[in-house]
Amino acid sequence: MNATTPSAPPSPPAPSSPSSPQKILIVSAHPESDSLNASLTDFAVGHLRAAGHEVRVCDLYAMKWKATVDADDFPDLAPDERLHVMAASEDATLAGRLSADVAAEQEKVRWADAVVFQFPMWWFGPPAILKGWIDRVFTAGFGYGPKVPPPYSEGPLAGRRALVSVTAGARGTAFSDRGIHGRLADVLYPVQHGLFWFTGMAPLEPFAVFEANNLPAEEFETAKQEYARRLNGLFTDEPVPFRSLVGGDYDHDMRLLPGVEEPGIAGLDLHVRPG
Amino acid sequence: MNATTPSAPPSPPAPSSPSSPQKILIVSAHPESDSLNASLTDFAVGHLRAAGHEVRVCDLYAMKWKATVDADDFPDLAPDERLHVMAASEDATLAGRLSADVAAEQEKVRWADAVVFQFPMWWFGPPAILKGWIDRVFTAGFGYGPKVPPPYSEGPLAGRRALVSVTAGARGTAFSDRGIHGRLADVLYPVQHGLFWFTGMAPLEPFAVFEANNLPAEEFETAKQEYARRLNGLFTDEPVPFRSLVGGDYDHDMRLLPGVEEPGIAGLDLHVRPG
Repeated sequence: MNATTPSAPPSPPAPSSPSSPQKILIVSAHPESDSLNASLTDFAVGHLRAAGHEVRVCDLYAMKWKATVDADDFPDLAPDERLHVMAASEDATLAGRLSADVAAEQEKVRWADAVVFQFPMWWFGPPAILKGWIDRVFTAGFGYGPKVPPPYSEGPLAGRRALVSVTAGARGTAFSDRGIHGRLADVLYPVQHGLFWFTGMAPLEPFAVFEANNLPAEEFETAKQEYARRLNGLFTDEPVPFRSLVGGDYDHDMRLLPGVEEPGIAGLDLHVRPG
Repeated sequence: MNATTPSAPPSPPAPSSPSSPQKILIVSAHPESDSLNASLTDFAVGHLRAAGHEVRVCDLYAMKWKATVDADDFPDLAPDERLHVMAASEDATLAGRLSADVAAEQEKVRWADAVVFQFPMWWFGPPAILKGWIDRVFTAGFGYGPKVPPPYSEGPLAGRRALVSVTAGARGTAFSDRGIHGRLADVLYPVQHGLFWFTGMAPLEPFAVFEANNLPAEEFETAKQEYARRLNGLFTDEPVPFRSLVGGDYDHDMRLLPGVEEPGIAGLDLHVRPG
């Protein structure tokens, strides 16, 4: 090229996110389409897509998700057959004979590189519709059980990341280390460690918006900025360093070996590796 | 009376339970009427009635309990009105305008001197149908909120006792103090402290049957004996000594004051008074 040739347009700037495009499933559980939770889900969808990621959303209320495990989930169960939930779910999963709604959700989880739960804290846990998504989708043979890799770190859904994004009416101090509601990470242990880590997913620290009833507009803006930062780190932030079941820290009865923890560590923190 | 008069029949033996008759609500959540959970509920009903107590049972699956909070719960909500769950539930509760199914369950809780939850541990918590009973029944204005007594120890349902009876497929060591699943009391903290204690009910230590899949008959007999012992103590055993919010242990931001706990105490045990 000579000096008179107009210079070529500059290359497009590198994407602001350092990570390559990934697939993200957002499971959202609020009955009001104009709620703070719905706004946070919409924000996450837009933010992640703008960064080049693929996003799918399960809006559980809009889907009219059936929350309760029952015999209808297992079409092969004879009408007079006793329902043993774990056995029936494993049989149906391995035979590819789950009800269609459950099979569709399992496909979404398999597809995803990361799973995000968006929900309001109701009685210190997920709303029933989300608990029912967990109960029904994570069947034996899919999320746990003797026919898949063992739980905790090597579970069948290993390789995925997981993030809880929760809203709570309470102030944050009540969920702080010494807060009376219990530390947020401890209250969410059944999801963080019991579901995500158990099935092999790597959970990040939860993201929370406190005092969420009638949140002022400027605080919603602040919350979105903080959430954006967490979403940017979805594949790069360090996950909660829960201990592996098979890393030598536990005995054959699944108890932490004596003296493995650092002095002063107690409670659920026993199951987190020292920093 | 003289020597030839037949002696009068002895007085009937004193009841084996030292406590006076009480009213007990059992909330049971398993889809199979022939399950271990159903058997434990049936056993509890028989045992408590034999001791002279009044018992009512909510068999949530048999009732086809609606698990999800939604706008249908609040008949006064206009069709195009934004659903703010806490505000709507408080308005409906105080106006006596809750949906009939929720109002009926609240009446049962008010009636009861003790509430027993019977459920299988699914993903480290109650099945969705029971979570949905909690979400829908414990409305603002009934279980919590600014119009009723403050939470923890003095809550609106104070004076009642509460017992979780849970079955789990896992072995007990995995739920022991150092077990990888988390100590049972910690995993159940959202129910024990977050629901029962928060609303003022006094929770007892949970009762659990582990390795509950295909439990041998002799172990079921042992479990029933142990459960009978716990039911006998429903009104006399010492509840979990959770701290009161207003007893001087917490600051105005609901954080435990520095130095209140004994040395070495950490995690959720911070909120239990020293023994």
